[in-house]
Amino acid sequence: MTLLIAMTGWHVEDWRQRFQALLPELPVVVLGEPFDRRAVHYVASWKHPEGSLAGLPNLDAIFSLGAGVDHLFADSRLPDVPIARVVDPDLTNRMSEYIVLHCLMHLRQQRRYDRQQREAVWDDDRHQPAARSVRIGIMGLGELGLDAARKLQMVGFDVAGWSRSPKDVDGLQSFAGEDGLVTFLARTDILVCLLPLTTDTRGVLNAWLFSGLAQDGRLGGAFLINAGRGGLQVEADILAALAAGTLKGATLDVFETEPLPSDSPLWNHPAVTVTPHNAAMSEPEAVAGLIAAQIRRLQAGEPLEHVVDPAKGY
Amino acid sequence: MTLLIAMTGWHVEDWRQRFQALLPELPVVVLGEPFDRRAVHYVASWKHPEGSLAGLPNLDAIFSLGAGVDHLFADSRLPDVPIARVVDPDLTNRMSEYIVLHCLMHLRQQRRYDRQQREAVWDDDRHQPAARSVRIGIMGLGELGLDAARKLQMVGFDVAGWSRSPKDVDGLQSFAGEDGLVTFLARTDILVCLLPLTTDTRGVLNAWLFSGLAQDGRLGGAFLINAGRGGLQVEADILAALAAGTLKGATLDVFETEPLPSDSPLWNHPAVTVTPHNAAMSEPEAVAGLIAAQIRRLQAGEPLEHVVDPAKGY
Repeated sequence: MTLLIAMTGWHVEDWRQRFQALLPELPVVVLGEPFDRRAVHYVASWKHPEGSLAGLPNLDAIFSLGAGVDHLFADSRLPDVPIARVVDPDLTNRMSEYIVLHCLMHLRQQRRYDRQQREAVWDDDRHQPAARSVRIGIMGLGELGLDAARKLQMVGFDVAGWSRSPKDVDGLQSFAGEDGLVTFLARTDILVCLLPLTTDTRGVLNAWLFSGLAQDGRLGGAFLINAGRGGLQVEADILAALAAGTLKGATLDVFETEPLPSDSPLWNHPAVTVTPHNAAMSEPEAVAGLIAAQIRRLQAGEPLEHVVDPAKGY
Repeated sequence: MTLLIAMTGWHVEDWRQRFQALLPELPVVVLGEPFDRRAVHYVASWKHPEGSLAGLPNLDAIFSLGAGVDHLFADSRLPDVPIARVVDPDLTNRMSEYIVLHCLMHLRQQRRYDRQQREAVWDDDRHQPAARSVRIGIMGLGELGLDAARKLQMVGFDVAGWSRSPKDVDGLQSFAGEDGLVTFLARTDILVCLLPLTTDTRGVLNAWLFSGLAQDGRLGGAFLINAGRGGLQVEADILAALAAGTLKGATLDVFETEPLPSDSPLWNHPAVTVTPHNAAMSEPEAVAGLIAAQIRRLQAGEPLEHVVDPAKGY
């Protein structure tokens, strides 16, 4: 029984050491070096090369090294075995830190005060709206969306949520499906996107959606925060909406191409905040521990946790 | 019975209109115009000129137009009548918005990512600490300090508080007095100052205090957030501590001189965030309403609320 680590973009040797320390009895191999394909029962993947997991006849499960699994479904030759996500409570908290931070930056006009500081200008805003008069709309009411919603409410914001299928959440106004989307957008000053990337959601943050956001709110326009996946957004539409005033500002942690190309106009757009896909990074030690625990669960004959539904893609 | 408005720095006619609309039966006069001093029973003040409230023989109460009352006690000829603060629940929420925002900006290294964005640099931090591993210390456990503490805890921070006299607050580690101060500082990564300005607290944010802050925390140094009063801080000591590394960063909403002089080195210091004393501004309409309600209370023979203790100065 071997664990195969299959990743691109990350430092694989660190991961090998972490897993080997946690699972000393289990051989750990890395894609690219010679290994017995029949011995591989478990795969830990982050953006493995297309087709590289085919031909593993005894594979029992694939573990995504991140919360998202869209990188797995991008592989048309993905083996048909159970796939488990990482559900790291710490990652949920980190995502909420990011969402609360950037909602507050928009609410409190931090970019205006940054500009004033550069110019040594002292000018307050006697009509600064309070959080309770600003409406946040969260797309995606999974664990991340619900935790962010709860914390934004505690800070005082007027929060609602939208999800594909109806969800009944105590104390949270929620909308669902295509029917609910228009109403949801029309009451949203700050749109927070935490959707998974699936064939249904690709490109959902587009001109049509932006044009439905509230324009009459206390912030004097609509703001976008995308901390989901870059494939959810149409960057040309974001830039056009900013130019037209349909969007007043955007905070983007994810991009169509990552790292964001150095010639992207998003980098130096005065109304855009760019962060390098780090809204919610798990500590590698925590992720390795969670996956090691899942492997021990399988070995003890217990069911796998956090299994993905391939039909839904999340 | 007349209400006298005595202010400097703010637009007095707006206030006259607000009070007159709320109290149509009460004559409202403004300092600087002729009026009958014997008719004045109430004063609404914001930084009135020294001595200008002397010689009001029938004065019943003075209302501060802001949460702070230090501007009143700065007047050595202040009449000996009850003084009431404004306690605006909305102002408490706004202060917490500001405190949560700036604690999160320090936690999430927003200034680092701002710099990277200007330089089109994509570089994350795999070892970004979570809020739970960062210790916030709040000086001042009045209504503002306690609300901020509760909200910072909900976002995940490790929060403790310090106050002059011991306070027993559920779920909050709290320190008191000079004896508790050293221990409190030694466990503080981000110091949040919400103290009132009194003769005891003037200049409390000084070199000695900064040198006691934690230097071994997950943020790699100590941070200061002062949203109390400018008189609490020694700006030369803040600049020296930043130069020496005793402070790694500071967010200042208040200053020794306000507006902050255009030649202050704080404006363009890369580790300092300057905001124009707007962490928590009440909406003028709300403040006028709260003071009008206090005047009606007095007229109905009911006791005044939120009376200041002149011995303590808050």
